[in-house]
Amino acid sequence: MSDKVRVAIFGASGYAGEELLRLLLRHPNAEVVAITSRKNAGEPVEAVFPRFTHSRLTFIEPDVEKIARICDAAILALPHGLAAEYALPLLNAGIKVFDISADFRLKSEARYKQYYKVDHPAPYLLRKAVYGLPEIYRTKLKKANLVACAGCYPTSAILPTAPLLAAGVVKPKGIIISSSSGVTGAGRKVDLPYLFPECNESYKAYGVVGHRHLPEIEQEMALAAGMEDIAINFVPHLAPMNRCIESTIFMDAQPGCSTDVIAEVYKKAYGKEQFIRILPAGRTADTKYVFMTNICEIGFNYDKHTRKVIVNSAIDNLTKGAAGQAIQCMNIRFGLEESAGLL
Amino acid sequence: MSDKVRVAIFGASGYAGEELLRLLLRHPNAEVVAITSRKNAGEPVEAVFPRFTHSRLTFIEPDVEKIARICDAAILALPHGLAAEYALPLLNAGIKVFDISADFRLKSEARYKQYYKVDHPAPYLLRKAVYGLPEIYRTKLKKANLVACAGCYPTSAILPTAPLLAAGVVKPKGIIISSSSGVTGAGRKVDLPYLFPECNESYKAYGVVGHRHLPEIEQEMALAAGMEDIAINFVPHLAPMNRCIESTIFMDAQPGCSTDVIAEVYKKAYGKEQFIRILPAGRTADTKYVFMTNICEIGFNYDKHTRKVIVNSAIDNLTKGAAGQAIQCMNIRFGLEESAGLL
Amino acid sequence: MSDKVRVAIFGASGYAGEELLRLLLRHPNAEVVAITSRKNAGEPVEAVFPRFTHSRLTFIEPDVEKIARICDAAILALPHGLAAEYALPLLNAGIKVFDISADFRLKSEARYKQYYKVDHPAPYLLRKAVYGLPEIYRTKLKKANLVACAGCYPTSAILPTAPLLAAGVVKPKGIIISSSSGVTGAGRKVDLPYLFPECNESYKAYGVVGHRHLPEIEQEMALAAGMEDIAINFVPHLAPMNRCIESTIFMDAQPGCSTDVIAEVYKKAYGKEQFIRILPAGRTADTKYVFMTNICEIGFNYDKHTRKVIVNSAIDNLTKGAAGQAIQCMNIRFGLEESAGLL
Amino acid sequence: MSDKVRVAIFGASGYAGEELLRLLLRHPNAEVVAITSRKNAGEPVEAVFPRFTHSRLTFIEPDVEKIARICDAAILALPHGLAAEYALPLLNAGIKVFDISADFRLKSEARYKQYYKVDHPAPYLLRKAVYGLPEIYRTKLKKANLVACAGCYPTSAILPTAPLLAAGVVKPKGIIISSSSGVTGAGRKVDLPYLFPECNESYKAYGVVGHRHLPEIEQEMALAAGMEDIAINFVPHLAPMNRCIESTIFMDAQPGCSTDVIAEVYKKAYGKEQFIRILPAGRTADTKYVFMTNICEIGFNYDKHTRKVIVNSAIDNLTKGAAGQAIQCMNIRFGLEESAGLL
Repeated sequence: MSDKVRVAIFGASGYAGEELLRLLLRHPNAEVVAITSRKNAGEPVEAVFPRFTHSRLTFIEPDVEKIARICDAAILALPHGLAAEYALPLLNAGIKVFDISADFRLKSEARYKQYYKVDHPAPYLLRKAVYGLPEIYRTKLKKANLVACAGCYPTSAILPTAPLLAAGVVKPKGIIISSSSGVTGAGRKVDLPYLFPECNESYKAYGVVGHRHLPEIEQEMALAAGMEDIAINFVPHLAPMNRCIESTIFMDAQPGCSTDVIAEVYKKAYGKEQFIRILPAGRTADTKYVFMTNICEIGFNYDKHTRKVIVNSAIDNLTKGAAGQAIQCMNIRFGLEESAGLL
Repeated sequence: MSDKVRVAIFGASGYAGEELLRLLLRHPNAEVVAITSRKNAGEPVEAVFPRFTHSRLTFIEPDVEKIARICDAAILALPHGLAAEYALPLLNAGIKVFDISADFRLKSEARYKQYYKVDHPAPYLLRKAVYGLPEIYRTKLKKANLVACAGCYPTSAILPTAPLLAAGVVKPKGIIISSSSGVTGAGRKVDLPYLFPECNESYKAYGVVGHRHLPEIEQEMALAAGMEDIAINFVPHLAPMNRCIESTIFMDAQPGCSTDVIAEVYKKAYGKEQFIRILPAGRTADTKYVFMTNICEIGFNYDKHTRKVIVNSAIDNLTKGAAGQAIQCMNIRFGLEESAGLL
Repeated sequence: MSDKVRVAIFGASGYAGEELLRLLLRHPNAEVVAITSRKNAGEPVEAVFPRFTHSRLTFIEPDVEKIARICDAAILALPHGLAAEYALPLLNAGIKVFDISADFRLKSEARYKQYYKVDHPAPYLLRKAVYGLPEIYRTKLKKANLVACAGCYPTSAILPTAPLLAAGVVKPKGIIISSSSGVTGAGRKVDLPYLFPECNESYKAYGVVGHRHLPEIEQEMALAAGMEDIAINFVPHLAPMNRCIESTIFMDAQPGCSTDVIAEVYKKAYGKEQFIRILPAGRTADTKYVFMTNICEIGFNYDKHTRKVIVNSAIDNLTKGAAGQAIQCMNIRFGLEESAGLL
Repeated sequence: MSDKVRVAIFGASGYAGEELLRLLLRHPNAEVVAITSRKNAGEPVEAVFPRFTHSRLTFIEPDVEKIARICDAAILALPHGLAAEYALPLLNAGIKVFDISADFRLKSEARYKQYYKVDHPAPYLLRKAVYGLPEIYRTKLKKANLVACAGCYPTSAILPTAPLLAAGVVKPKGIIISSSSGVTGAGRKVDLPYLFPECNESYKAYGVVGHRHLPEIEQEMALAAGMEDIAINFVPHLAPMNRCIESTIFMDAQPGCSTDVIAEVYKKAYGKEQFIRILPAGRTADTKYVFMTNICEIGFNYDKHTRKVIVNSAIDNLTKGAAGQAIQCMNIRFGLEESAGLL
């Protein structure tokens, strides 16, 4: 009856699920037809998220067969490993799948195993998945059946660096990324380190060596640079705030680099992107200006002293880093206005 | 009558002044005999800092001549430029001066002018000043009449790197420091960017190129490495918390480096230091564990993948980064227990 | 050309102005045609609020005559006193005026003078103004030319109490309101008490006796209760958060009161209101569930022990307490969907 | 060998335990000889609280018999119910017991059962326990073997009201207390509502009717007023901060009341108390000025309009509301300087 895209959200009781609901419940061309949660099945949505009182939605069990009959698109906000299990039957039923987990982001099965410590549940799907970063893969996304939405940290790292690497303005060797995330980045996980008194007035690094988002960043940087492989450093930090990620990225400039050159590269790459905001040279990205938006803000500096290009990016980890990105990809796939539901 | 060190605090109405009072009012061997503030002269201390109700102190005008007659030590918590003006007459009157400002930290007059945009007010004093970082300059501090207390960011950057540079474990070239500070780091400055709603849920870089603490860090790193000059990158960020600084520092390892080697170097350098806490390899420093203490916490990782040594340090910017450090230096100079008033 | 309501915002550079822009820039039936700011005249909107990059708006001088020619509605986000000055010529030019300041909220000129310490600038307009609380004055608002939008604290106090007073479920005597507001409630005022380090880890009362919102609350409570006058206590507090207000209100129950009776009264009064969320008995309102929404959440308890009715309400001070409320009133006045731009 | 008071802390792995350690490790006349934790037995203290690196303490099993042989005082930071179980054998072994739980605060066994839903484990001890609020029960505390340290909310409620009730300046009927606590007040409990993203930007009431601290407050207010029973309202709130409690208390004035009278009563009651700070009339208590101190700050207003006395108090919930209070009581009991270890 409806000509709206019918969306099912799998694993909707976490922070990404909450953000998906916030955005989709006011999306003009999409309709949420099912939300699943094993833990909360049977409960109305407002029992878990009191802000959605007017919604009539109720969490249900993740019965793929049943749900596949009533939806056009499935967004998977599930833990890695589990997402791949659900993706296969959904794809077989003809549903377009937008996976927010990490299951289909890496092209290399070996890398997946190295970082996630398990065999990949559906390795042949790795080749079919399109990486869900619309500003870079828009054309492919138009026909993708399985979209591996880019991770939160990777989005903040790849968007500001890919055009510079592709243009040869910076060297692909020795790139260093220092990122800071709000606490929702840890998920709605009930664990001591995420209690308010443990996080407040606390700032610290974690996953200094071998964080799971590292191979994803390296893969996309290598592709942008036209190289086989790139080795970088990526150090995430937990900051005392709810949402958003800031990434400060240090790259060696190639000869001829200048702020004008950088500005030009960004303009060419992103001048028409409505979800990317390039700041004037010398300014820095601030998480508060992307809070609860789908925008990636990018600032840049060139340090003559050390011949480094330093870029700062900011995104909302739950929006552009998760739910917003999935919806943006879905909009593209279904031929909707790319910004529908995201402004 | 008193055998306590009589201390005058110049410029006591800011956050560093408040922290000095918090520490000195319970110092067993020191006594605050004067606190100055042009703006608040005549007001009792609790009018500015209601927490010091039991104190009988009143802010007075900074009359150097008068104050010099009643104190043994002067701690200058003044803006740069002004501090140098006060230091000279105090030194001439035989007072030991502990300057928290940046006026005497750089040995190079030219560098001072380059970064502070004014001629140095008392260049010949630059050679007399001892850099106030006790873990490195303890011997010199015992006889120093003018102490240039290390800055907050520099303390967090130099303490974890100096021993590694001195031991040749890391390369002095290409060092990158990404630091995050609580908002008291901006001083008690009444300015729009420091309003609560502007800082909360905000994280951003500033001073990406040419921050004033850069030459101070470079100077001390070069000294540690036995080099004339070092060029590094230092990017500070403002984080939504009151106090503390975290620094994440990336260095290229020299051949032979390993976590064991690093642990050994730190043990040798800091094994007996009561204000330095070296974490086991793989752990990261957390600002909440140094909050309102004089401790510098240091964690380290060695990334074989990129052959980088990554160290994380945390200090309280107002204590080890300002007031505590000044008191530690003063304790050393006056032959007191180094930790007096600081535990 | 446009059939949208053309809106001018006077005094658009504060937090209420920012919220008005956030809401109006995506309002389907309204268009911002002018934003004024004496301080920022000539600057593009993104110079003051970097989040509005795609907007083409520029701050202009508050030239009433010129602006009146191009707008249908004016929203005044000006300081009290000033708002009244602008309202008159705008009304004379046939513009509908929605005033967020306190200038037209009190019906009594004497009360205005008592609390604001100045003569009212346009006392005859007091009688023409309609109090901008749609859930209570919707009918009058449909024809109002001058709307005195309800204050933030008053909205949180009046919405949960008016129906109970009107129904005679609680006594009008001895009502006590203890409210807590986020720091944006103080405006974008650059003043020491609102610095991040002064507000963080701080919670305190202010304006304990005679806060300016008191007469507004008393006036509306008296009207609801059908009395000439009511004397209550209202104590606001500043809480370390950006947005929202919570009000905890204590009232003596009339005989026959029970949670069922209260639930019934609320259902009757607000059952069809889309911006009021009545919680089941025993639950309490939480600011996080109204954050950045136009909703007023209301919880209630009846304490048999002391025969008190205790209600807790939560609103977003910038949305339902200011910008959202003004837009809701405007939507009503112009015959638009009441929730347009507010979901 | 030591002439220090030897202290054992039972249940030392929560926030109160951490605060006890912070204070006792620098107490000049006390020594921590044992810390127990079933969960963490065998672990060094810094594994749970990394800030206590220099300490040599290790958590042990709560073996009362063994521990009783090596300590003079036991501080119980255990859940209610459990505390009473430990108190008896400790008392039998001659150890002075300072209980931070609620087990011995109520004199009425029936009230205990009503509010805690279990039979009291050791009802005959209820009569022996002295209520641990030194400013009111100092004399009794000098000889107490079992001290029921006052709760956090009750301390903030009783200290500012008891003298006014005792002096007959306010009416004992109809008292209303609205309190706000930082999140450590919930303990170090790993539960969804206390996650950072759930608490940040959240302010809400809880336990509106029948909170467990209510009978404790009523008991002490009745005693102060010389009455058998008092019925009041007490509504606690959770505020987005780590520590401290603010209480706003509304009382009906008796004839003759004025701010001068109130000031006089407070001066007489607390003029010599070093841990109570009475503010000048019209000022309000601010949690940030008692943060990490043992002080109770009290402000007061008299509202002629409604004839209400409104007092605002602030304490640090972990210090004066728990650990500091226990130590203050212990200092009194052992004839030490009352402020030892607390300044």
